[in-house]
Amino acid sequence: MIESLNADFAVGDYVLGSLGWREKWKSTGEGVSLVDSKLAPVQTFLGVLGMTGMTAWAGLTRVARLKSGSTVFVSAASGAVGSVVCQIAKLMDCRVIGSAGNAKKIAWLREKAHVDEVFNYNETEDLSGELGALAPNGIDVYFDNVGGEHLEAALDHMNIHGVVVSCGMISTYNSTEPVPAPRNLFKIIGKRVRIEGMLVSDFLDQQYAFLNDMSGWIKSNALVWEETVTDGLENAPKAFIGLFKGDNMGKSLVRIA
Amino acid sequence: MIESLNADFAVGDYVLGSLGWREKWKSTGEGVSLVDSKLAPVQTFLGVLGMTGMTAWAGLTRVARLKSGSTVFVSAASGAVGSVVCQIAKLMDCRVIGSAGNAKKIAWLREKAHVDEVFNYNETEDLSGELGALAPNGIDVYFDNVGGEHLEAALDHMNIHGVVVSCGMISTYNSTEPVPAPRNLFKIIGKRVRIEGMLVSDFLDQQYAFLNDMSGWIKSNALVWEETVTDGLENAPKAFIGLFKGDNMGKSLVRIA
Repeated sequence: MIESLNADFAVGDYVLGSLGWREKWKSTGEGVSLVDSKLAPVQTFLGVLGMTGMTAWAGLTRVARLKSGSTVFVSAASGAVGSVVCQIAKLMDCRVIGSAGNAKKIAWLREKAHVDEVFNYNETEDLSGELGALAPNGIDVYFDNVGGEHLEAALDHMNIHGVVVSCGMISTYNSTEPVPAPRNLFKIIGKRVRIEGMLVSDFLDQQYAFLNDMSGWIKSNALVWEETVTDGLENAPKAFIGLFKGDNMGKSLVRIA
Repeated sequence: MIESLNADFAVGDYVLGSLGWREKWKSTGEGVSLVDSKLAPVQTFLGVLGMTGMTAWAGLTRVARLKSGSTVFVSAASGAVGSVVCQIAKLMDCRVIGSAGNAKKIAWLREKAHVDEVFNYNETEDLSGELGALAPNGIDVYFDNVGGEHLEAALDHMNIHGVVVSCGMISTYNSTEPVPAPRNLFKIIGKRVRIEGMLVSDFLDQQYAFLNDMSGWIKSNALVWEETVTDGLENAPKAFIGLFKGDNMGKSLVRIA
């Protein structure tokens, strides 16, 4: 028989927590929070309504202090964070340029997320040239999920007083060699560029404002999102490795039940 | 006979301008401003009371928004900007660590500018290790005049929410090879470090506040400075090249009369 000894949780409730990869465990209720499965599908609390959506929101509105009319460049643009960044920027009347690594992602960005300009970084020898052609008036905000050559290319085209939100540098995480890029970092001086690292955990006190904005956009069907769902805890390592191989579209999830 | 046809300027007045290397020229008065030689020696308007002093002041107070009690690391610490940065930070009750490239500069920083910790970057094989030993509690503000390996070392030891004021990257200006450092840029994410490029020209509207602070410190003998004076316009190229060779102490000046 399954029962709950904690009055805050009923049998069958969904909870959210960062407790590592596991199928079941005994909990005192500490470190988990209830999820309202009537508000939205439960997995959205791991995506657009969760930390990845909030990362996009906080990065654009709090770190970059994005203004409407800006030009925004987003790398890993079809990813869990990037895809929300692109759409929030569009909702804020910005011109959005996204990069991704395969044709399926490019098509999704163009057709589903309505990103203004997209390019496949695996199909260009000249990332900076490609970006420059798509951003003839320069870039005001670069939302950086990958670092490395993307950051170098962005610095070539940043506008004066532009902002780089450093959210991830996945291109460098597994590098066994010193990462040479960005070799043009000196450009931030003449252009007075601000590069700022961010973690969503700094913005938890603003969760109410985030949920308010985001649930409004979801209710009005202004946001789309993708999930790459892998079934079975035994396949979690494969799903994780897929993050670094560019296999996954949108939020990567492992379904255990 | 020398005479002035502009009522704003008398024969013998000193003026300040960015008009390139020249000994004499005819001026309408445009693009130059009068300098009060009774207030301070005229060359201080090219140094501590000029753009280099204001760069130090604006970088610390406006870009870094320095708080008393912080730990501040300054590269090219005996230079025209760096030496003022060190002293303003000390006046703001901060702990200051400076790096410079020869024994004479190190001695000056220790004995004249009263910098807390100094090291000679030409005498260490392990810049990051050296810096870490001198900053056991981490660095809150790094005032970067050189870029490259210094920036990489600083990023290793920046505190959470630390700020890097990017004022110069002289180590990279003349490089003919791609500059590999900083290979650890990803650290700005976890530490939420802000790296911000600056030019003093963005702060000209705050010149009154600057002159007020700086002239107060000069009057109370709280600031010292050095000048490396080269005589004769024909020697200006040699003085300029000296900037890149680390020859010059404090502000580099060429005396033409």
